[in-house]
Amino acid sequence: MEILSGVQDGLTLGTPIALLVRNADARAGDYAEMRSKFRPSHADYTYQAKYGIRAVEGGGRASARETVGRVAAGAVAQKMLAELAGIEIVAYVQRVGDVVAEIGRDVTRAQVEATMVRCPDPSAAQAMIDLIDAVRKAGDSVGGVIEAVARKVPAGLGEPVFDRLEADLGKALLSLPACKGFESGSGFAGTRMRGSQHNDAFFSEGGRVRTRTNWSGGIQGGISNGEDVVVRAAFKPTATVLLSQETVDVEGNATTLQARGRHDPCVLPRAVPVVEAMMALVLADHWLRQRGQCGMR
Amino acid sequence: MEILSGVQDGLTLGTPIALLVRNADARAGDYAEMRSKFRPSHADYTYQAKYGIRAVEGGGRASARETVGRVAAGAVAQKMLAELAGIEIVAYVQRVGDVVAEIGRDVTRAQVEATMVRCPDPSAAQAMIDLIDAVRKAGDSVGGVIEAVARKVPAGLGEPVFDRLEADLGKALLSLPACKGFESGSGFAGTRMRGSQHNDAFFSEGGRVRTRTNWSGGIQGGISNGEDVVVRAAFKPTATVLLSQETVDVEGNATTLQARGRHDPCVLPRAVPVVEAMMALVLADHWLRQRGQCGMR
Amino acid sequence: MEILSGVQDGLTLGTPIALLVRNADARAGDYAEMRSKFRPSHADYTYQAKYGIRAVEGGGRASARETVGRVAAGAVAQKMLAELAGIEIVAYVQRVGDVVAEIGRDVTRAQVEATMVRCPDPSAAQAMIDLIDAVRKAGDSVGGVIEAVARKVPAGLGEPVFDRLEADLGKALLSLPACKGFESGSGFAGTRMRGSQHNDAFFSEGGRVRTRTNWSGGIQGGISNGEDVVVRAAFKPTATVLLSQETVDVEGNATTLQARGRHDPCVLPRAVPVVEAMMALVLADHWLRQRGQCGMR
Amino acid sequence: MEILSGVQDGLTLGTPIALLVRNADARAGDYAEMRSKFRPSHADYTYQAKYGIRAVEGGGRASARETVGRVAAGAVAQKMLAELAGIEIVAYVQRVGDVVAEIGRDVTRAQVEATMVRCPDPSAAQAMIDLIDAVRKAGDSVGGVIEAVARKVPAGLGEPVFDRLEADLGKALLSLPACKGFESGSGFAGTRMRGSQHNDAFFSEGGRVRTRTNWSGGIQGGISNGEDVVVRAAFKPTATVLLSQETVDVEGNATTLQARGRHDPCVLPRAVPVVEAMMALVLADHWLRQRGQCGMR
Repeated sequence: MEILSGVQDGLTLGTPIALLVRNADARAGDYAEMRSKFRPSHADYTYQAKYGIRAVEGGGRASARETVGRVAAGAVAQKMLAELAGIEIVAYVQRVGDVVAEIGRDVTRAQVEATMVRCPDPSAAQAMIDLIDAVRKAGDSVGGVIEAVARKVPAGLGEPVFDRLEADLGKALLSLPACKGFESGSGFAGTRMRGSQHNDAFFSEGGRVRTRTNWSGGIQGGISNGEDVVVRAAFKPTATVLLSQETVDVEGNATTLQARGRHDPCVLPRAVPVVEAMMALVLADHWLRQRGQCGMR
Repeated sequence: MEILSGVQDGLTLGTPIALLVRNADARAGDYAEMRSKFRPSHADYTYQAKYGIRAVEGGGRASARETVGRVAAGAVAQKMLAELAGIEIVAYVQRVGDVVAEIGRDVTRAQVEATMVRCPDPSAAQAMIDLIDAVRKAGDSVGGVIEAVARKVPAGLGEPVFDRLEADLGKALLSLPACKGFESGSGFAGTRMRGSQHNDAFFSEGGRVRTRTNWSGGIQGGISNGEDVVVRAAFKPTATVLLSQETVDVEGNATTLQARGRHDPCVLPRAVPVVEAMMALVLADHWLRQRGQCGMR
Repeated sequence: MEILSGVQDGLTLGTPIALLVRNADARAGDYAEMRSKFRPSHADYTYQAKYGIRAVEGGGRASARETVGRVAAGAVAQKMLAELAGIEIVAYVQRVGDVVAEIGRDVTRAQVEATMVRCPDPSAAQAMIDLIDAVRKAGDSVGGVIEAVARKVPAGLGEPVFDRLEADLGKALLSLPACKGFESGSGFAGTRMRGSQHNDAFFSEGGRVRTRTNWSGGIQGGISNGEDVVVRAAFKPTATVLLSQETVDVEGNATTLQARGRHDPCVLPRAVPVVEAMMALVLADHWLRQRGQCGMR
Repeated sequence: MEILSGVQDGLTLGTPIALLVRNADARAGDYAEMRSKFRPSHADYTYQAKYGIRAVEGGGRASARETVGRVAAGAVAQKMLAELAGIEIVAYVQRVGDVVAEIGRDVTRAQVEATMVRCPDPSAAQAMIDLIDAVRKAGDSVGGVIEAVARKVPAGLGEPVFDRLEADLGKALLSLPACKGFESGSGFAGTRMRGSQHNDAFFSEGGRVRTRTNWSGGIQGGISNGEDVVVRAAFKPTATVLLSQETVDVEGNATTLQARGRHDPCVLPRAVPVVEAMMALVLADHWLRQRGQCGMR
């Protein structure tokens, strides 16, 4: 990675930081067949329909390679959040297929990085690894859920109506390749609860208003309440599978396609730092907006 | 409702349309206790923390009354989408608590409006009504899921990276009061599938590229593919319950609160037109952007 | 004027403030002829060309009546700037036709309001009044220049490239009806100077870096330097004149038009508070942005 | 220059085009003295005041080198405008110091490029060259005015209130280094005319509504009317002069500064393509917006 602008002697200058990462591992040949055929559940057809043209090699802008830019920007945001606000963010794989991990709220990045699948529950991690291996051998793929927690977020971040904190976090995560769902706090499961169970009772602790439970996921009325901000993102099974699939060619004729080349049967472990980065970018934006509008009360 | 600008003799003028709806049923007295106490899982505390001041009567801007503006704007967007693009949108209550409806993709608004709970599955609708009644009698509340379908969306709406169609739909729905989750297509459930099952095979039909299944929910690579756009939003149980709750007053002293006055034990039925409106606004924006950039290929 | 939202007991709530001013003096009959003819140098033709429809009565959105919203919003911005930053803004008519006023930098709003034409130079003000009267009697109109000064603007407002302070001030004033030119500091006249004359020498005063002259108009590199921010806006002669003019009707046939009804031969005096309002809105935005990004160093 | 993204086989892909130009001629040593002293009428002091830090070498982001990015982007916009809309843009130096050129509306780029100072009036061009040479020898600098014309702009570009075409063109040009003034059409001079002279009479020509004169500069009510769009930008004399100047050091102590190194006594000729580029970017944006909203009527 090369820093093109905005940094001098290790310090940011206040002006935009431009970062450049070149693809050092392009294999154009892998994409020859895609020139004439649309890969199912990839962006080949929709880009063609939208623009009347598409980059074939590497999938063009639709490639998840673009997330490197998000991670790089998120690294700057995380430094800023840590230094100015004390905010820390941890994400981890919470589920792969049907394998669910049990994870405490005090989970650390070290625990996450301790396993190959970025799941801090060691026994679930092993089951995930086994599942992914089996799926890989079958030439297939599998999806799952990433959970992310932001700690020490001050109360007051987020806007009342359109730019609610969970709306902006949702947009940020749903903008990731393969992400098809988003939850904050109790999410979909919470819709089965009664209000009397779901409401987070307030109490005082050391001069600070806190809540006994955190079904709200740290956000009430679209604004952070000082508790841990907790979100989850659903990632579908990778579209690239090494099995023969029904599709059409660019003229619309029926054909089949069997992918070759690189095959990642489960994007979840690699998506963990991307989720952290997007969460950091949203929190940094809202932190700056709040300091602008309210002077960081 | 009063139209303040942008319309003349029943035609829009191209310039902004301002709409005004006055609250004709304000009951300021209902909110007296809230002046001194924070209601659990409402926005009282977070607004106070953010701004150092809050409107007490009616909950101020945090009241779901604000959604009337969304519905009014969405009505204009739906007219535009229908006339210019032939797009039609239908939303309905898919689940309340644990009561799940079975709903076909050809569901109509007339079927939705045929039941009090805006659920087009009559037997599920009755079970939902019974559940809501029981919850109401208990002074409690319950949540659920709304599903929305947009039909005849042309392929090509949505942007490749940040303004993906599902990202913008997600932000739009997550900006609604009480919404804690969003899915498009297969959503969270799809993460348990294998890629070989989840991929939507392409075929040709009448000169148009179509997909055999629609796990993608009409969106691939962030861009519409011409199939039905299908999304779901999770609404938590209403925060207002008529039971005594632990909370703190504005000085941070422990106290209890028991809501009086209006009590809506389940917001789902009333949220259906709001979900339709937000979906329409997002699709209208992207339709205009696409016509701008690509000239509606 | 009615405050619709965002204010309670005389205090802003942090949320958007909606203000409504109804036109209490509409005279639809004055516009009958304009239904079929395009008024020269008005927006009739361009609106029709843009939208294929236009509001005829009162000129629709193209009427300078819209500036009431800018003045109302600017009043809030000016209160904020005065209380939080100590910034004060004064605008005045500097020239009408060829009548130029001599005005010191310490001019006050009281001096501005002391004359009917909002020109704080009493002898120039009288000459302007005489000129405007003569022009009015001739059924004609005249233009001029408004100058505005913002004092006690802290150094640091404005962005390095696209959102330079003078770019945003320029856009704000050029968005006003009849405004065809904008200058900051030495403006067009300064382009005739040599750099050695034009450069503002720095010196120290009470621990603060100041400049001996202020040809920069308080902005260097797009960012305020702590000196008075000085801008000027050129307003063309009003398009409505009571003389017969060559034009075409909506079918394109040659015809003539002679305006009747209200006729304001010189908009300058009435534009003074609008210029102040727009300047305040830009400075308030940049003040908030600077507090957000840099914490008001 | 390197194209990093958005182009394939000479065709744009619809997705963002990233362009990279590296500074191949940096001379860091030239800036040693600026580390400790603020250059008068440069951005040194204001950047320091804004951010508490500044890039010294090359002037950092405040250097006019940044305009290379504008020119590169503007080249793409000009191609688009030419192909899709037939719009063509020509800018030229209209005045340097007191030397004024006489230039017809049918001026071509070839005529502009025919002289070193990019002034298509050959005798004025020679006088400008002589003036700039004399100023250079004196170690001084001089400013001037650039005029730009956009031809074949369709009627209908621009928005009624805030994003008026002249407001956006004004912001674009005022965002350029050293630009201190902007005019459209008759500009400041027009404020001395009477309305009866200044109004542009309408007539029909070949089924198109046209105007006899063009004091409006092709924009009425903020929207293009189909005539030539004409704007002017004022550029102050370059701040870098080779004469000794009074200033302060970064601690605020009085000192003097005498620039060395590169010295451009008049930026006007080099700013011509930058002005064309910015005009193209604004017109391209508004053309896309108009096609989006109104379908290019």
